[in-house]
Amino acid sequence: MKKISRLLMQMEFIREIDKLKYIQRKTKLFNSERHENDAEHSWHLAMMVMVLAEYSNAPIDVLKVLKMVLLHDIVEIDAGDTFLYDTTKNHSNTDEELIAAHRIFGLLPADIGEEFMQIWIEFESGETCDAKFAKAIDRLEPILQNISNGGGTWTEYNVPFDTVYQKIDKIKDGSTFLWDHVDELIEEFRKTERDKIDVSLG
Amino acid sequence: MKKISRLLMQMEFIREIDKLKYIQRKTKLFNSERHENDAEHSWHLAMMVMVLAEYSNAPIDVLKVLKMVLLHDIVEIDAGDTFLYDTTKNHSNTDEELIAAHRIFGLLPADIGEEFMQIWIEFESGETCDAKFAKAIDRLEPILQNISNGGGTWTEYNVPFDTVYQKIDKIKDGSTFLWDHVDELIEEFRKTERDKIDVSLG
Repeated sequence: MKKISRLLMQMEFIREIDKLKYIQRKTKLFNSERHENDAEHSWHLAMMVMVLAEYSNAPIDVLKVLKMVLLHDIVEIDAGDTFLYDTTKNHSNTDEELIAAHRIFGLLPADIGEEFMQIWIEFESGETCDAKFAKAIDRLEPILQNISNGGGTWTEYNVPFDTVYQKIDKIKDGSTFLWDHVDELIEEFRKTERDKIDVSLG
Repeated sequence: MKKISRLLMQMEFIREIDKLKYIQRKTKLFNSERHENDAEHSWHLAMMVMVLAEYSNAPIDVLKVLKMVLLHDIVEIDAGDTFLYDTTKNHSNTDEELIAAHRIFGLLPADIGEEFMQIWIEFESGETCDAKFAKAIDRLEPILQNISNGGGTWTEYNVPFDTVYQKIDKIKDGSTFLWDHVDELIEEFRKTERDKIDVSLG
C-alpha cells in the first residue's frame, strides 16, 4: 500500500514535467526558424554530454552530468525561460527558480526529490567539475545554433560580441579544448559577416 | 591535428541529430492536441528512468539505460516513426533502421559510433535486463498519454484492446510492478468509457 502511494507521487511528477515541452527558448533549431523548447534542448545537451565528455578539463561522473542536464531546466515550468543575454534579469538561482524547484521536485517521494534538488543546486552553483562541464555544454548548444542561423539571437537582439564573450566565457571552466573550438567558430563567423558588409559597401 | 578532426566528426553528429526534433510521433502530449516529437519523447523517457528505476525486475545499469532511451529513436531521422499499432510494418530491427544506424552513428569517431551501435542493438534485441526495462518505459509513456487524452491513438485508430494488451505486454518483462499499475489504469479507463456509453444509451 505504501509502495502504491510512492508510485502515485512518481507518476504525478512524470505528468507534471510534460509541461517542459511548452517552454520555448529564444534560440532556434539548427538552420531553422523554429524555436527550440526546453525538453528538446535538455535531450540535445544529454546527447552532447555522451559525445563530448572526453573534453572535460577534469574527470566527470557522466551519470551525474546526464542527470544534471536532463533536469536543469525543469524549474522553468514555473519560472519561465531566462534569455542568457537579458541584462535586466539575474541569471543565477533566482528566488523564483528556487520556489519552482521546491514545488516540482517536491511532488516526488522525499528521497528522489532531495536527490534532484541537490543535483539542481550543484548545477546552479557551478562549482564542481561536473557542474562546470554541464554548464559548458549548456552554453555550447545555442552558440552552434546561432552560428548555423546567421547569428541567431545575437543578431536578432543586437547583442554586442563583448557581451557574448562575457556570457560564454564559462565554457573555459568546463573545457578549454571546447572553448578554443568555440572561439575559432565565432571568429570565423564574425569574419564572414564582416566580409559580407565589405562586399555590400563595394 | 588528429584531435581536431575527431572533434569535427563529433560536431557533425551533434548537428545531424537536431533533426530528431522534427520527427513527429502519433501520440500527443498529456491532455493535449499537440503531437510529441522524438526528441521530447526521448527526454521524457530519460526522466522516467531516473524516477522509476527502482521498479525494474532486475538490477539495472542506470547510465546504460539512460544512454539507451536517449539514442533509441535516432534511427528514425532516416527511417521515420513507426506507429506501435501499425500491423503492416515489422517493428523490430528493420533493414531501414539498421542502415540509418550505420549512417548516423557512422558520423562519429569509430569508438563512440560503435558504442552507440551496440547500445542501440542491445535495446532493439530486448534481451538484457537493461533493454527490457528501457522497453518497458518506452511502452509506458504513450499509455499514460493516451489515457490522459481520452484514449488517444487507441481511439483515433480504433485499436482493439486485445491488440493494445499484446503490444504492451512487454512491460512485464521489465517491471511486473509497473505492469500491474498499467493494467489497473487501463481497466479503470475502459470502465469509465463503458459507463459513458451506458449513460448515453440511457
